[in-house]
Order: sequence, then C-alpha cells, then structure tokens
Amino acid sequence: MELQGKVVVAQGGGPTAVINQSLVGVVLESRKFPQITKVYGAINGVSGIINENFLDLTQETTNNLERVAVTPSSALGSTRDKPDAKYCEQIFDVFRMHNVRYFFYIGGNDSADTVRIVNEQAEKSHYEFRAIHIPKTIDNDLMFNDHTPGYPSAARFVAQSFIGLNLDNRALPGVHVGVVMGRNAGFLTAASSIAQKYPDDGPHLIYLPERPFSMTQFLGDVNDVYSRLGRCVIAVSEGIQDENGDLIMQESGDSEVDAHGNIQLSGTGALGELLVRQIKKNLDIKRVRSDTLGYLQRSFMGCVSDVDQREAREVGEKAAQFAIWHDTDGSITIQRTGYYSVDYQIRPLEDVAAKTKLMSDDYINAQANNVTDAFKYYLQPLLGTGMPEASRLRVPRAEKIGEGK
Amino acid sequence: MELQGKVVVAQGGGPTAVINQSLVGVVLESRKFPQITKVYGAINGVSGIINENFLDLTQETTNNLERVAVTPSSALGSTRDKPDAKYCEQIFDVFRMHNVRYFFYIGGNDSADTVRIVNEQAEKSHYEFRAIHIPKTIDNDLMFNDHTPGYPSAARFVAQSFIGLNLDNRALPGVHVGVVMGRNAGFLTAASSIAQKYPDDGPHLIYLPERPFSMTQFLGDVNDVYSRLGRCVIAVSEGIQDENGDLIMQESGDSEVDAHGNIQLSGTGALGELLVRQIKKNLDIKRVRSDTLGYLQRSFMGCVSDVDQREAREVGEKAAQFAIWHDTDGSITIQRTGYYSVDYQIRPLEDVAAKTKLMSDDYINAQANNVTDAFKYYLQPLLGTGMPEASRLRVPRAEKIGEGK
Repeated sequence: MELQGKVVVAQGGGPTAVINQSLVGVVLESRKFPQITKVYGAINGVSGIINENFLDLTQETTNNLERVAVTPSSALGSTRDKPDAKYCEQIFDVFRMHNVRYFFYIGGNDSADTVRIVNEQAEKSHYEFRAIHIPKTIDNDLMFNDHTPGYPSAARFVAQSFIGLNLDNRALPGVHVGVVMGRNAGFLTAASSIAQKYPDDGPHLIYLPERPFSMTQFLGDVNDVYSRLGRCVIAVSEGIQDENGDLIMQESGDSEVDAHGNIQLSGTGALGELLVRQIKKNLDIKRVRSDTLGYLQRSFMGCVSDVDQREAREVGEKAAQFAIWHDTDGSITIQRTGYYSVDYQIRPLEDVAAKTKLMSDDYINAQANNVTDAFKYYLQPLLGTGMPEASRLRVPRAEKIGEGK
Repeated sequence: MELQGKVVVAQGGGPTAVINQSLVGVVLESRKFPQITKVYGAINGVSGIINENFLDLTQETTNNLERVAVTPSSALGSTRDKPDAKYCEQIFDVFRMHNVRYFFYIGGNDSADTVRIVNEQAEKSHYEFRAIHIPKTIDNDLMFNDHTPGYPSAARFVAQSFIGLNLDNRALPGVHVGVVMGRNAGFLTAASSIAQKYPDDGPHLIYLPERPFSMTQFLGDVNDVYSRLGRCVIAVSEGIQDENGDLIMQESGDSEVDAHGNIQLSGTGALGELLVRQIKKNLDIKRVRSDTLGYLQRSFMGCVSDVDQREAREVGEKAAQFAIWHDTDGSITIQRTGYYSVDYQIRPLEDVAAKTKLMSDDYINAQANNVTDAFKYYLQPLLGTGMPEASRLRVPRAEKIGEGK
C-alpha cells in the first residue's frame, strides 16, 4: 500500500558547506515517486511548519537545485527551536491539513531528537507518517556514524587554515593560538593536524574537549615547543574544560545561553585572547597572537570536500528511498566499509537522538596535547581530492664569510 | 659593461598567498644570466643579510621552486626590522664581502623604504649595485600601482568569507560583524561587497578607514537594515577611526606597538566585540555575533586568484630583467592597460616608499557605509577565474490552508 501525500523537508541547526546537497538529494529523489503529490521545503526548520511557511520545491528547476546544492548554508533557512509536546501538536495540525506523509529533517543530534518526538506523536495519534533524520554536523559527533556530512568540508577548511597559520608563524615567528569550533567533540580541532607535513610544522599542540585542560600543563607545553623551535602554533577547541568540567572560556566573562540550554561559544574571540594573556603573563614571549576561526568554518564559500558533497547528496537520496520505498522511519547513518568506501544504513532514531559521539582514545596522544597517526589515517580520505599542500625551500645554507660565521 | 656578482633576494613584512611567486620569478629569471654567480635568499628579510643567513637558491630544483611558488607565506621567512644608517652599513659590509651586486626586496611600502635607504648608502659609498623593490601587500596601498600582488588573493578570501557569512546570517538571522584587515586603506574590506549578489544580500553595511566612523551613525545604519530585513551583515576595517583620527579599536584597551611604530591591530577580536557590545546595548537585537578574519586573510592555503599568481610571478621576473638587463634601480609597478590587461613599469623608489594609497572617492558611497559599482568594476577582474557564486531557491511560497494564512 503506497502512502500518498506530500513531502516536507527542513533544515535545522548550524549550516554546513554541503547541507544543501542533502536537501537536493531529498527533493530530486522524492519527485521521482508518483505517490508524492508535492515536495515542500519548510522555511527556517520546524518553525516554518507551524507557521505554514513552505516553498513549493516541486516547481524548482533541476538546474537551479544543482546550483543551490553547491552553495553552503541552509537554503531553506534554519532554526534553533526544539519542539515540545504542544509544538508537536501544532506540527501535526499542519501536516494533517496538508496531507504531509513524509518528513525529512536534516540536522544534528538535536534535530534527530526533534524527529524522534514528532514521530512518537504521530504514532500516538495513529497518523500514518514516515519521519527520517538526515545527518549533518560539522562537529562529527553523531553516534553510529563513521562521520557526518558537513564535517569533511569543515575539516578541510580547518586543515587549510592551519597550513596557512603554520606558514605565517614560520615566516614571522612567535606563538599563535587558533580556536576551532567543537563543544564536546574535538574532531574539527583535530583536523588541524593535517598541516603537520614537515617534522617541525605546526600545530605543535592540539587541545581537545575530550581531555581535561590544565593551564599549568598548557603553559609548560608551549614553553617546551617555543624553547625548541622558537615558535609555536596551537590548535584548541572552543569547548575545552577544566578538571571539573567547567568551560575554560567561561573564565573570560560574558556567556549567552541558547534555546537548547547550551552556552554560546562561537562568535567571540574570548578564549583565544584569554590564552594569549596567560602566555604573555607567564612566559617571556613577545609575539603572541590568536585567531578564532568562527563562522567561516561552517559556511566559507569555496572550500569543500568532494567526498563530503557526494555523501551529503546520497544521505538525502537514501532518506527518500528508505521512507518512500521501504516505509521506514529512522536516522540515516554512514558506515565505512573500506579505505575508502562507505555504505548507508538506517538506524532507530533513539540511537542517534540527543547523544554525542566523542573522539576515540586511540585518536588522542598520551600527553593529551596532540592527535595520533590513527586519527590522520581516519581523516585523510574524507578531505577529498585536490587537497593543497605546502612546500619548502630545501637547499643548504650558503657558507658564511664574515665574523657572523 | 655587465655587472658580475651575486643576487640577494629577500621578503619583508606580512606574508601573502602569492609572495613566493615573486621570489620564484626573481630566482628563475636571474639564473638565466651568465653574469650572475649565485642567487642567494636572505632568511628573514634584511636581518638575514646582516647575519649572513643565506640559502643558496642556485642549487634549488626548478620543480621544487614551482611547488614553493604555489605555497602561501614568505618561504624565506620575513622580518619587521627597518634598517637605520648603521644597519645599512652592516648590510653593505656583507654585500661587499659576498660581491652581491643585485638586491631584490619583496614587500610593502616599508620594504620599499628599506630599499631606498640601502640604495642611497650604496651610491654614497660608490658601490656599484642595483636595488629593486618588488611590490607585495594585501592592503593594496602602494602608490602608482593599479593594485598590488597579494591583494587579489586576499580580496578573494574576504569575498568568499562574506558570501558564506551572508548565507549563514540568512539561515539563522541576526546581526553579524566581520572585521577585515586594513590599517589605512579599505580595499580589502571593500572586497566583501562581491557577496552582494541578490538585492538583499550582505554585507549590508561596509565601513572603511578612509571615512571617519561615527558610532551614532553606525547604530542608526544597523537599526535601519535590521528593521527592513530582520538581519544585518556588516564588514568593517580594523583601522576605522573616529573624527579625531583615533582608532575605534583603541577604545577596547590593550594595544601593542610594532617596530615601525604602528599599533598592533590584528590577532585580536577586540574591535568586533566592541561593536557587538554597542549593538546589544543600544538596539533591541538578540543575536549579535562577530568574526575577525585575522591571519587567514593573508595565508590561508587554497584560496588564490590565478590573475594574482601570474602577476606576482611577472613582477619578480621583470625586477630581474630591469636590474640585470637594463641596469636600473626602482620599484616595479602594475599599470592597468585595459579590461583586463596590465603592464609593468619601474618607478623611482621614493615614489612608492613609505607612502600610502587610499581608496578613491568614487569607490565609496555618499553615506560612507558601502562601496559603489565603480569599485566592483575595478575589483572583479582581479579575483581570477573560477570565483564561486551563491545560488538561492526561487520558487513561490506554497499556499497556506490554516489560520496562519
């Protein structure tokens, strides 16, 4: 029995470079099925549903969809709203009214939780309905996924940034702190390690939220590297915490809380500046700077992994197939099947919803200030083709003639 | 009479994405001339000369030179040293000792001034010697140049950044402030305007150091845009000053002074955060964020204009030709001869040294909060081929059924 009706697709949470690939995957695949009467895009996530703000994507040209697919950041707009029971009722009123039978929500673990709640409500009210969560997050922190669409492109941005920051620091030596997004999981910060091409290349130190951050160890680490190389590049996650689980960033003062109860970490250079002040105060180093990579990590136009693009498209396509062909609810996941090949599986929503995957222990070194080769082996194929590489002059020093000899 | 001896090439000031193209241009071109006995690269600019820290680039492979050419940031290392008379004497002692007869210094207007001083000293001491300044600066502020190598690639990075920041802000609306490098000249900040594709695309407001910055006007401008669009993206130069010529950034507290007597502007998010605080305090807007583009602007690996690469290579080649063939001193300049074509001229060092070119009046709008079409016409061909572009969904809203109608 084919379930006839409309599709609604929506995007939630922070944008990524490839989130529109998944959107376009859903739209193009859904439009192939005769039982799909319309494909609607909800504007600004779930809030667009309750306000009946839909774009009729059945009318969009394939050509323009393909151009939107290569444009970063949620083309439908996003939201940080997290529906409660009442919000869900409103969603259902609209879905019933429009005969929406398929719901695809592209987002992270909070969005997966939204899909789970909506789906529970549908079952309770005996509304025949398929709901699928499509993974997306630059944090790479979804359970049961080898990695998540959006992460490879953001990782590539971080890697290319640190290749540059390392070269810059080599030309004009000093200490440079680069602050990378990542509240609980350090995957994105760890991507900076790709810049470590030559033995003395930075980042020389990498600090992740998976390990408690000690200011004393940090200052000792920086001092060691600086004494040895006359320079030091540091990559640090915005989410680093002390032994008690308190965010280091909080020490800097003003924090803002979002609708999910999370402290706002991005959009401020506070953590980088706090670390710079500590280094200047405690170590005798003159040139100390910081960069906070900020929103560019998730929306910079023109730095994308082709592997990520392909997979983001496929999770959208698979979502439509699982729902419309196979009548399944769940969350699409990416499984690594070879080096490098993947497959897609559908998992129960509760496996992914509101849970966080962290970096495994074998990706982090014993001193908790760098990553291991195992992590680089994991990351490398995700970065895609045409990954740029830095090269150095390799000739010997010319012989001195004068007293400087 | 051919002047026989060594070449010394050095790099000064802040790195750019294409500064090694100029280096490689000098090296490859110089190596063709039989009167050149060796091609030395001074490590860390003029400081490498007085310490006799040279790389013997005569021994570098062409293949590796070509790979270094596409690597951002000064491969020889850089310096902020500015030689005085005594420093110059030391330079000459080394040059005489090594029979260095050709000196090429790749840098901005401070580096041009260094070349001018060194050359004056050479004339005084009757040392037969050619000295050439090769232009480089992301600030685009050298006199008698249509534009400067390094600027087009940095401008492309800024443009791609703001395409992303605009899309991000469109997906999750609020106010976003992006702070761009540029102490006196606003060219780099102005490059953000390339993101203005659709009529309501940001940056909606652009503030440049060429015009006095008024906090009152700024807050009024932001309020106007936000009231109209429900969001606002702002591009601002780190060097914006008030009516008295005082840096707005200084209001935020700690400032550092470099060897040239300039206040340190980069490597801190202070200006962005100051503007965010002002907006939050004075306007009733909840989501206000800032990003400081920082060092990525000048050294990000993998965002480069091919036009910039080509020209940076050519100014290096031309420098070698002017010095070795034509026995000339001076500064290489880029002249625009068509849309788009260029030619290279050599100018007296004093024309370029220690002077600053600003944006012309017809590039800035009357309200001093945006650029004009004339500026975009000027910039567009510099950005090179393959410049990415954002696309939107264009379908109509679906008809509402419920009360939300």
